[in-house]
Amino acid sequence: MTEFTSINAATGEPHGDPHPINNLEDVAAACAAADAAFDTYRATSREDRAAFLECIGEEIMALGDSLVEAASLESGLPRARIENERGRTVTQLRLFAEVVRTGLWQQLRIDPAMPERQPLPRPDLRLRMIPVGPVAVFGASNFPLAFSTAGGDTASALAAGCPVVIKGHPAHPLTGSLVAQAITKAVNACGLPAGVFQHLVGPSNELGAALVQDSRIMAVGFTGSRAGGLALAKLAQAREVPIPVYAEMSSINPVLLLPSALKSRGADLGTAFVGSLTMGAGQFCTNPGLVLAIEGEGLDAFVEAATRSVSQSQPQVMLTKAICASYAKGVEALSSLPGVEKLAVGTVSDDTRGATALFQTTASAFLANKAAAEEVFGASSIVVRCKDEGELKSVLEALEGQLTATLHMDEADEGIAARLLPVLERKVGRILANGWPTGVEVSHAMVHGGPFPATSDPGMTSVGTLAIDRFLRPVSYQSLAPSILPPELRQEALNDGVPKLIDGTLKLN
Amino acid sequence: MTEFTSINAATGEPHGDPHPINNLEDVAAACAAADAAFDTYRATSREDRAAFLECIGEEIMALGDSLVEAASLESGLPRARIENERGRTVTQLRLFAEVVRTGLWQQLRIDPAMPERQPLPRPDLRLRMIPVGPVAVFGASNFPLAFSTAGGDTASALAAGCPVVIKGHPAHPLTGSLVAQAITKAVNACGLPAGVFQHLVGPSNELGAALVQDSRIMAVGFTGSRAGGLALAKLAQAREVPIPVYAEMSSINPVLLLPSALKSRGADLGTAFVGSLTMGAGQFCTNPGLVLAIEGEGLDAFVEAATRSVSQSQPQVMLTKAICASYAKGVEALSSLPGVEKLAVGTVSDDTRGATALFQTTASAFLANKAAAEEVFGASSIVVRCKDEGELKSVLEALEGQLTATLHMDEADEGIAARLLPVLERKVGRILANGWPTGVEVSHAMVHGGPFPATSDPGMTSVGTLAIDRFLRPVSYQSLAPSILPPELRQEALNDGVPKLIDGTLKLN
Repeated sequence: MTEFTSINAATGEPHGDPHPINNLEDVAAACAAADAAFDTYRATSREDRAAFLECIGEEIMALGDSLVEAASLESGLPRARIENERGRTVTQLRLFAEVVRTGLWQQLRIDPAMPERQPLPRPDLRLRMIPVGPVAVFGASNFPLAFSTAGGDTASALAAGCPVVIKGHPAHPLTGSLVAQAITKAVNACGLPAGVFQHLVGPSNELGAALVQDSRIMAVGFTGSRAGGLALAKLAQAREVPIPVYAEMSSINPVLLLPSALKSRGADLGTAFVGSLTMGAGQFCTNPGLVLAIEGEGLDAFVEAATRSVSQSQPQVMLTKAICASYAKGVEALSSLPGVEKLAVGTVSDDTRGATALFQTTASAFLANKAAAEEVFGASSIVVRCKDEGELKSVLEALEGQLTATLHMDEADEGIAARLLPVLERKVGRILANGWPTGVEVSHAMVHGGPFPATSDPGMTSVGTLAIDRFLRPVSYQSLAPSILPPELRQEALNDGVPKLIDGTLKLN
Repeated sequence: MTEFTSINAATGEPHGDPHPINNLEDVAAACAAADAAFDTYRATSREDRAAFLECIGEEIMALGDSLVEAASLESGLPRARIENERGRTVTQLRLFAEVVRTGLWQQLRIDPAMPERQPLPRPDLRLRMIPVGPVAVFGASNFPLAFSTAGGDTASALAAGCPVVIKGHPAHPLTGSLVAQAITKAVNACGLPAGVFQHLVGPSNELGAALVQDSRIMAVGFTGSRAGGLALAKLAQAREVPIPVYAEMSSINPVLLLPSALKSRGADLGTAFVGSLTMGAGQFCTNPGLVLAIEGEGLDAFVEAATRSVSQSQPQVMLTKAICASYAKGVEALSSLPGVEKLAVGTVSDDTRGATALFQTTASAFLANKAAAEEVFGASSIVVRCKDEGELKSVLEALEGQLTATLHMDEADEGIAARLLPVLERKVGRILANGWPTGVEVSHAMVHGGPFPATSDPGMTSVGTLAIDRFLRPVSYQSLAPSILPPELRQEALNDGVPKLIDGTLKLN
């Protein structure tokens, strides 16, 4: 097979011209070109690199409606959502351009020499972060723009100074090709080597496996299933030189309805919850797949309102037929668990659309069934009814690592919230109050990460400006002559506006 | 077996009273206590935690001569070296106390809410780093104080807010017990839970394996052999929840003698090189095990002087008989490689002492023999004679990852140095000029790390204040009520002197 075809998500039918499938030779050639481009690309000035990121954003906008059309058709997501996602993608590139300009990511440190120190003199030591090398990025199924070809992994790797080889998601080859063309235009416009960005596509796992195993790739960014992330991590660990796979994988994002809030607005919360649950057919990493609350009238009202909303919700086109089938299977598995009650489960109208599903169970039944805590990718959630705070805490403690935890709370709930916070901090990357987890802000203080299996590295985030840290490593320069020191560490750069840690004290200028 | 005995390194004979061997139940109990102590310990104020680190230093000094005596006897290292190492250990604790006080390690970030933003309001987002949880630390054989019970891993983990369970090195149980007693005194004096620090000791690998496999341990610090580090990493990866092993393992630390420097002071460099090579019987992670230079009179003078110095060097007591035997085997293996010439190899006088060994070979023979680039732990080194700059670069490019690279250079060498620097940056964690790699400064701009197999994570360092980052992870707080926000992220902490990134701009106060 040398070609494959784009699929219209809503109809399941082939669409447009076939796409050539990249082979293993293409992988090797892409990695060689990325490696060859690395030293040139990492030597670009902060300003040049920032301008390149901004140029990518402009080229993406210049694709115009054809991009929105393609992404909507291939993903089954509505045009409005795709337009928002395009805005987010471009904003993200601009934000990383700003980050590159600040130079903060270089974490410059200078320990001046102390020639007179006893018993031994101290040498001059200067530190900066440098990019790790070529990075492999895997496009995600659920964000054809913001977590794919020019998404967060690509933006942060390019910002760090790493060439990127992307393995596009096979569900949106047309979207990926369009964005890749835009990036390539920016590469050319900025006079950068072609190896700075390369796009590979094909329906088999073989391609991605070869990419991760190529000795020139130094890190991997991945957003997708737990099985996929673990498979890549295993390949990466088995290399002669193991490399990190930053995989964002699996999360059911507990929502805690605290007693006072539940009492005062149980029904409203129920309706709003289903709004978050059904957004994008539930195909979010941060989809609220678990609701925890203490028994009472408030919880009854919540469940009643949520059940009503779910019953009224319409089936939605899912990203692919395979994802839709897998969702139906997950809902079926939940339905058959002992002690799990079906509150409302729509039928799957056809093999491209998923129906919202809502379950409830008791804390003891939930704790007895590990399977009840497994992610079902799509608009499915389970309400766990706890007898008291102790039981609620036990359920939290038994959970695996998560991307988010949400607290719905009033002032009167601050006591219980404060008692639960230490448990939540050990379990999740982001704790939010009186909102829904499905909006992930791209900013400086965002963490889209968390303990395993939410991600493979809880020390990192894949959204927000801190994501650049995944692709950097420190190098220390001792007693180097000024002429061969990296420019940003020379004496003449001391007051260049880039913050530096001078002998342990942070100086802004 | 329930007890084992300390060995006098110089005589190989048992010394003093036997030490009880910890068993697997002790491991489980220690991990449970560490886990139980975690929330209390991580909630300590910066000042209290800093005072605790300083108190450990004071208690170590209060052990007085008994500690120096024990460490010297168990390691075979001279008293003066042990006294220096004790100073380094205490200074390191004080430095981390200072780091804790600055609060910089918390990487506080605040993105204020933008309620009016279109199309969607931005929520209030605040980020801080929190400690990862209980940390397992493995004592190193070659630094009974500075890389062991109260060494860099312990100091940085405690600074981060992580309880520590240490598996003491079986070669120095008495030293380890004394230091553990000092730390326990400090724990008590500071009113901290006993689970903040625990010491396990025993001669089998089973103990350390159980520690790494315990589900309550969240990260591991290790300095030692490549085989040991890889074995621990494998266990850690196979856990239900994989955890990072920060292993500092194997490095031969290339020393590059650039043409002009070599021409002007080849003989002096040869003599000074042997001083670095033989320090501490060559038992340093940063021992110069490889010398690279271009053929010529300067290199002849270097080799002649180095050969003379090695011939005159005395056998030195090594850390253990096993290390001494392994060193002899490594020297033997190098001797038998095709194209490798023995310049000077002392005989092993007895089974506790190692003799310095120096070899030379050509670049082509070196490149043809992967074994010639393997670390021989001890005072052994190999000079690789290169025909020209191209061959020197080829040798560098073929090397595995290293902790350090050293340049001996004059002003006239700045051209070649600048051409080699990009290669070196991709291979090592620290590049130094006109010194020797064996001194590792404990400061802010130090990197004691580097690409695999020098370490298991090139993004980190095990020496210097950046080492604290290994034991931290980010948590984001969205729209939390002030009363339940972590104190350092509340409005009243905005001007408390701890630097914060406010909407992407760094503010000192």
